[in-house]
Amino acid sequence: MVENVVIIGSGPAGLSAALYTAREGFNPLLIKGVGSGGQLLLTTDIENYPGYSKIAGPELIRLMEQQATQFGTRFLEGDVTKVELNSKPIKLHVDDKIIETLTLIVSTGASSKWIGLPSEKNFTGRGVSSCATCDGAFFKNKEVIVVGGGDTAMEDSLFLTRFASSVTIVHRRDAFRASKIMQERVLSNPKIKVLWDTVVEEITGDRKVSGVKLKNLKNSLATEMKIDGVFVAIGHQPNTSLFTGQLELDKDGYIITKDDVLTNIEGVYAAGDVADRFYKQAVTAAGSGVKAALRVREHLSMLSFEESRSKH
Amino acid sequence: MVENVVIIGSGPAGLSAALYTAREGFNPLLIKGVGSGGQLLLTTDIENYPGYSKIAGPELIRLMEQQATQFGTRFLEGDVTKVELNSKPIKLHVDDKIIETLTLIVSTGASSKWIGLPSEKNFTGRGVSSCATCDGAFFKNKEVIVVGGGDTAMEDSLFLTRFASSVTIVHRRDAFRASKIMQERVLSNPKIKVLWDTVVEEITGDRKVSGVKLKNLKNSLATEMKIDGVFVAIGHQPNTSLFTGQLELDKDGYIITKDDVLTNIEGVYAAGDVADRFYKQAVTAAGSGVKAALRVREHLSMLSFEESRSKH
Repeated sequence: MVENVVIIGSGPAGLSAALYTAREGFNPLLIKGVGSGGQLLLTTDIENYPGYSKIAGPELIRLMEQQATQFGTRFLEGDVTKVELNSKPIKLHVDDKIIETLTLIVSTGASSKWIGLPSEKNFTGRGVSSCATCDGAFFKNKEVIVVGGGDTAMEDSLFLTRFASSVTIVHRRDAFRASKIMQERVLSNPKIKVLWDTVVEEITGDRKVSGVKLKNLKNSLATEMKIDGVFVAIGHQPNTSLFTGQLELDKDGYIITKDDVLTNIEGVYAAGDVADRFYKQAVTAAGSGVKAALRVREHLSMLSFEESRSKH
Repeated sequence: MVENVVIIGSGPAGLSAALYTAREGFNPLLIKGVGSGGQLLLTTDIENYPGYSKIAGPELIRLMEQQATQFGTRFLEGDVTKVELNSKPIKLHVDDKIIETLTLIVSTGASSKWIGLPSEKNFTGRGVSSCATCDGAFFKNKEVIVVGGGDTAMEDSLFLTRFASSVTIVHRRDAFRASKIMQERVLSNPKIKVLWDTVVEEITGDRKVSGVKLKNLKNSLATEMKIDGVFVAIGHQPNTSLFTGQLELDKDGYIITKDDVLTNIEGVYAAGDVADRFYKQAVTAAGSGVKAALRVREHLSMLSFEESRSKH
């Protein structure tokens, strides 16, 4: 059996693409990695998804999943290990079987970036985290640092004040790149301190994190700080290693698209953060998922037109 | 007073742009035409806005308006009669006053197209309508035709079966361009008939519509049909006459954009159906409104950086 459309990824982009292609009657198959659901699962309350004044990220994902299911989306949990995008039909290796499909929507999202210290890896899950929402509650009345200067670092810091006794933002520059409103909220919060021009050089501890070695980049002064947790919030890495050499990627690994969703291969579309280095919002991801779905519809009706002509 | 950002139009694109720019603290001003709210106000239940399995169009708009208001959007009812996009700041003539702004988001949407018959104009509001949702209820137990072959024509026809005793779709071609699921729903509905290859040549009646003159394009046969209502569903016209000669428009009047929302003038952004001839969905409009808002943020922080530098 050759699928009409397979969608890889189950964040807002993938689920919106599923909703539309399912409602169109294309019987889509959505492949979700184990424990997936996109970055939205790692957030708490969202107040900027148009139409919801306030909704928890996981709840929004649940609603989208339900909606896609209602129109007939089939879900498959599995890991895509290899893709053959230039074969017709497209071939996907999922665990130990091969799935064939006429069209493919890539909505694999982007993952958090890490500082790159060996000690960071050692302490992951034992005091080091890239997900304040997931792990914040483990730091009740503890002291934590947040590394970064963008919106995510601000959001994480504010969120962590709900648990931690103190939050210190460690930022390598002398200004945040976060939005004004988030900066204001952070800088006016008495529980949050900021160390400007500072980088983490090492994370120390025995079984668990107990401190960090810091360095001020302006005066080269090295200091140590007793701390219980390190939250890394320095950006994202698109999940595109599977597509290297087949889809055109930019220098940072984002899929290069035309008209938001068209890739260099006909019948293969990109949606959401995997092709978006700038906007990265739930609703922009959802919108691009819908765009990809409408391109799939266009492509499938073209294919069936060609097929019906070749029969005459 | 010079505004940071003015938004023209109050559909999903404009309201989403307002939500984001308001939440950023830019205190946006949204200008809505009298009786506006976008095409969504003219729909009934929507089941493909990601996150809502079923919601009435006007209710979704109301929620978005509430959400934008909650973060401080100011609304102004008025008609923009003239714009000076190349002046700095941008100047907008609204009724009898001039509003100045650093940035502008154009989300004026698109309006329904008409067949172009003089009789169509004469009978508008007296049996001729471009909005089944608005006017369907006036045709209880009456016989109506729907002109068109796209998704809107299908949706309108299905909706009208709730009121009319019979619905006949008059379509100039021998196949619909509507999506498969909508076609199937229409063709399997016993209350709906289709006249293929047929155009409306005249709408007849005394004070109200009482019939149409039809012509079959394949055999040139002219027929008359007794009918109470004519619903025109043949597409849309972007609302861009205000910007002619200043913004780059394509041959059909849609604003030409780069990266979805950038126009040929710095600081002026387009969002929603006004720049979208293909997708035209509530969530794609909302997504592009958010993109425009994030471009406004980028532009304003660049302006304030330049300003602070020029003071030194």
